[in-house]
Amino acid sequence: MKDRFIDFIHQLQDTICTELEGVDGKGVFREDRWDREGGGGGITRVIADGNVFEKGGVNTSVVHGELPEYIRERFGVSQAWFMAAGISLVIHPKNPFVPTVHANYRYFELYDSAKAGQPADSWFGGGADLTPYYYFPEDDRHFHQVHKQACDSIDERLHPVFKHQCDRYFYNAHRGESRGIGGIFYDYLRPVENSNGKNANSTAAQSPELPSLSSDQLFTLARHNGTAFLEAYLPIVHRNKDREWTDEQRYWQEIRRGRYVEFNLIHDRGTLFGLKTNGRVESILMSLPPRVRWDYDFQPVEGTPEANLLNVLKNGA
Amino acid sequence: MKDRFIDFIHQLQDTICTELEGVDGKGVFREDRWDREGGGGGITRVIADGNVFEKGGVNTSVVHGELPEYIRERFGVSQAWFMAAGISLVIHPKNPFVPTVHANYRYFELYDSAKAGQPADSWFGGGADLTPYYYFPEDDRHFHQVHKQACDSIDERLHPVFKHQCDRYFYNAHRGESRGIGGIFYDYLRPVENSNGKNANSTAAQSPELPSLSSDQLFTLARHNGTAFLEAYLPIVHRNKDREWTDEQRYWQEIRRGRYVEFNLIHDRGTLFGLKTNGRVESILMSLPPRVRWDYDFQPVEGTPEANLLNVLKNGA
Repeated sequence: MKDRFIDFIHQLQDTICTELEGVDGKGVFREDRWDREGGGGGITRVIADGNVFEKGGVNTSVVHGELPEYIRERFGVSQAWFMAAGISLVIHPKNPFVPTVHANYRYFELYDSAKAGQPADSWFGGGADLTPYYYFPEDDRHFHQVHKQACDSIDERLHPVFKHQCDRYFYNAHRGESRGIGGIFYDYLRPVENSNGKNANSTAAQSPELPSLSSDQLFTLARHNGTAFLEAYLPIVHRNKDREWTDEQRYWQEIRRGRYVEFNLIHDRGTLFGLKTNGRVESILMSLPPRVRWDYDFQPVEGTPEANLLNVLKNGA
Repeated sequence: MKDRFIDFIHQLQDTICTELEGVDGKGVFREDRWDREGGGGGITRVIADGNVFEKGGVNTSVVHGELPEYIRERFGVSQAWFMAAGISLVIHPKNPFVPTVHANYRYFELYDSAKAGQPADSWFGGGADLTPYYYFPEDDRHFHQVHKQACDSIDERLHPVFKHQCDRYFYNAHRGESRGIGGIFYDYLRPVENSNGKNANSTAAQSPELPSLSSDQLFTLARHNGTAFLEAYLPIVHRNKDREWTDEQRYWQEIRRGRYVEFNLIHDRGTLFGLKTNGRVESILMSLPPRVRWDYDFQPVEGTPEANLLNVLKNGA
């Protein structure tokens, strides 16, 4: 499974970068390969100042070694070894009418000895979510529909749970508003044949309504959703990338990007996990938008499209 | 003491706002008075788009009531009532040669009953620190010298400890660099007559080298340093505010402001404390700079003033 997952993320990284470059027409991905001190490393690919994409990263990493203290404490294990493989992407378009998008698929193995081999525990996590600056119902429907299809191909009970978890996770509690309009999110999904007395497919939200899934099914879940990313996002890019925008609309985008930063630095477990376990800072923080504003108490005028977005993020569509 | 401290912060707020408006010549402070649901409230004053100051806030708050759960857990107390009074300011100048400055002086009382009265415990905290975008040794010396004098007026053992604590506190651990060039920082300084079996003047850093101070002395410490703020900062503003700058220097300032955001949202106890205890979000996050950039892996060219600043922040002056 480990090797299959690693192949999958590298192929997906290649495909997504090639396609995004094609859509952009100007920007190209710059690649940085890096090594992790404790074992493993990653491939960071970043695009900047394109025609369509102002800043974006499509990163893979395959890291292994002794489990960092920060995670040992969280999981309540004394000594353990691990392997974590994942693909993570965040795309910040220039045009305020094109939403920011994030996706991440990951696989984790835990071992009792440094020799790795048969994992003592393993799980899958992943998700994708959309953060628009202006709300278009057709973009919303499309993004969710594509991920629903990808999840339904495994089991129809998955998507409602993953969608709900996504809404709960990408939430700026200190502002009482969602980061974006959601998508899917799942974590700690353990293959049934490998669950070792722990709850098979226990999720962060502990959802008893989730079916038991095999390692193969969980891999297919990541593969189908990962592959669906371009199908979910590119039509939204094409529909909006040539809309004209004003300085005021750009201003609004930069204000909203501030909320994206707030979520990632205050609430996002993945970001804080990476920073506390001495991950590669530039690869972790490539998720932050390129240009951002914080004004004191900025409030959109009632009845405007800006106020409508805020209403959707506070109260739902 | 409570009333004296509250008078002090309100007078200081008035003085600082008046003086900063005078220096700016264009921007004026807008005032928002707000109430806290659980008791008390604050006066937020914000300046924006001035000649000199691009964004700044000088806030006071006097809040009281039942101790929020988040703090009860941290202090290991079951039920308690509190009063907290403080002044907090952050100034982000437009010109990249003028440093950002932050200062904060606060006083906390804890009571066994809702009736307040004689506090069961009380302590003082505070500090001021400078965050330049270009390093000028004379600004560095001046800022530290003024705070040293203010601390020395109470006891000469204070300043070395407070300066060291400031360097330790305002540190972006995930980047291995300081937020700025320091100043002073102290917390949990308990008056000797009121220490109730707890370590008198125990500090966050548990410094046995600190002398025992009375409530009067700790108040004078806050007053002398608070009053010294303008003396510490304004000469630095005057020395640099009319320097011409290029787009590249402004770009560097916006990149560095990103580090300021990272510190405040990832590491700053005050910010996280405020957000987790349902403080007023706009008053807390007024500390964030107005315009900010995150580029992937931005590195200044060796031998430039930008590289020099980074070197000072990583290795000291």
